Amino acid sequence: MANEFDLIARYFSRPAPVGFLGVGDDCALLPSTRPGFQLATSTDLLVEGRHFFADVDPHALGHKALAVNLSDLSAMGATPLACLLSLSLPTADPDWLEAFSNGFYALAQESGCPLVGGDTTRSVSGVTVGVTVFGEIEVGKALLRSAAQPGDDIWVSGTLGAPDIALRLLQKTLPADAALLAATRSALERPRPPLALGQSLAGVAHAALDISDGLLQDLGHILKASRCGAQINYSDLPVDPALAGLPSLVQQQAVLGGGDVYQLCFTAPVAQREYIMSRGRESSVRVTRIGQIMAQAGLLIKGEDGSPIVPPVLGFDHFS
Amino acid sequence: MANEFDLIARYFSRPAPVGFLGVGDDCALLPSTRPGFQLATSTDLLVEGRHFFADVDPHALGHKALAVNLSDLSAMGATPLACLLSLSLPTADPDWLEAFSNGFYALAQESGCPLVGGDTTRSVSGVTVGVTVFGEIEVGKALLRSAAQPGDDIWVSGTLGAPDIALRLLQKTLPADAALLAATRSALERPRPPLALGQSLAGVAHAALDISDGLLQDLGHILKASRCGAQINYSDLPVDPALAGLPSLVQQQAVLGGGDVYQLCFTAPVAQREYIMSRGRESSVRVTRIGQIMAQAGLLIKGEDGSPIVPPVLGFDHFS
Repeated sequence: MANEFDLIARYFSRPAPVGFLGVGDDCALLPSTRPGFQLATSTDLLVEGRHFFADVDPHALGHKALAVNLSDLSAMGATPLACLLSLSLPTADPDWLEAFSNGFYALAQESGCPLVGGDTTRSVSGVTVGVTVFGEIEVGKALLRSAAQPGDDIWVSGTLGAPDIALRLLQKTLPADAALLAATRSALERPRPPLALGQSLAGVAHAALDISDGLLQDLGHILKASRCGAQINYSDLPVDPALAGLPSLVQQQAVLGGGDVYQLCFTAPVAQREYIMSRGRESSVRVTRIGQIMAQAGLLIKGEDGSPIVPPVLGFDHFS
Repeated sequence: MANEFDLIARYFSRPAPVGFLGVGDDCALLPSTRPGFQLATSTDLLVEGRHFFADVDPHALGHKALAVNLSDLSAMGATPLACLLSLSLPTADPDWLEAFSNGFYALAQESGCPLVGGDTTRSVSGVTVGVTVFGEIEVGKALLRSAAQPGDDIWVSGTLGAPDIALRLLQKTLPADAALLAATRSALERPRPPLALGQSLAGVAHAALDISDGLLQDLGHILKASRCGAQINYSDLPVDPALAGLPSLVQQQAVLGGGDVYQLCFTAPVAQREYIMSRGRESSVRVTRIGQIMAQAGLLIKGEDGSPIVPPVLGFDHFS
């Protein structure tokens, strides 16, 4: 059987760009940040049985492991620079590694985020994937959770609800529906964070984050960090078209509480509406105004008839 | 039970230094690198049952998870800047988290390597710890594996063999010996990478790496990357004093093949002998010359009687 070093050499040693020292030494080396820029960095672990199924397509897993981290860069308005990958595997299966590395590298190349280092170890059971991403952002332009201001519009990019429905179909907590699974599965397994949109919002929008834990919970993080409240209109939410035929309570739960949405929720001054719409068009990402930031604490969700909606769930909690 | 956010807030949110954005947003932000410096970064996963025992003292595990990553910075000659921590845990045990975080933060503070971000998730079983470290190094001064030159002295810092003996006592592949375990255990569980020594070698030594996979295997990495050979004298090796009473074959295996030694193996020009000895004294780290780099490929280990030693093992392979 191949040893650790052979594996790394075979699947994870594509060359790093000029100015970088890549895989093969104790550390990777990144070029110095440009004057006036900061380094943005984030790390996420994906654990088998919690974040993906044991039989997940390894190409999709490679894609998603990087995508969830790129989503964090996107939510700061940062531009990707490079990434590191840690893999803990029970066995070294060449087919699995080839598919995983192809999925990972494809998104890395598309996103301008080269893999420059990492670590491979054997696990006792199950796959764990750790990714760390690096990006750069101009000093003072990062989109912080604490920066929302009363009167700001609240926006979301992309659509809501599809990943949650796909997850529940795969978990069999929704009745089997092959057409619905086909229409929602790529949102769950191959998310594409809106990097270009996020970068164009740096220094323009106020607060931003990704909707990885569900709209209500994540918007709640903005409200708490910014010490303000919000009002959103349910009928304005960009419900994924695949959810059209579902009972309204199932839809509501997926749209308000469903996590794994690697899109942005952000707030911005009213004066920026035109700019944001045009940046959305340019980057081919739907952007939708869903409500407003209020000075008074609390989150009010207005239903289609104007009466408040009591949310059925409050998003995904990794330790609940 | 506390949810993820409470846990992070309670145990992992000590404030980041001025110029950093720490735990609590999508990314951490690091100050820009100084002109003329590069960012050095490395990541390691520690997996329960592979890299530590399920009943390990959590304070020691917190220490070690950071130490093995600081060791990579040390082996590049880099100065620590900051770190990220990912934890995957089957349950959220406050006592465990408190001890783990105290062990982690104590070494972070001592090393000038503040924790600025991370991720906490629930695992199906077992603990996985992922750490990413960042450091800075002057452009052109990093200690690369590929930089050894014929005629260089080969040095090691610290002593060899103790972590391997402690591991084998805990695994019960050596007969129980409480005194020997007491004398070797801290080398295994609380390694202290020689950061100050590594920094003082930047731009002075040629090649360097840490001895995490065992002296022979790690020196082999230098020889392969530098396309040269080496001769070392077994009697010059800094065998840990705790190994004194052991049979010579057990000792040899631990000293030549034993991994988990978060010390340096490095090569340097003969003209630097005095400088290196004095930097060792200043940083209170033993430094020992063990042999020389040769133009001709191959590694020759000379025994005490001058005859070659055939190594009993070749170091730790995570996938063998």
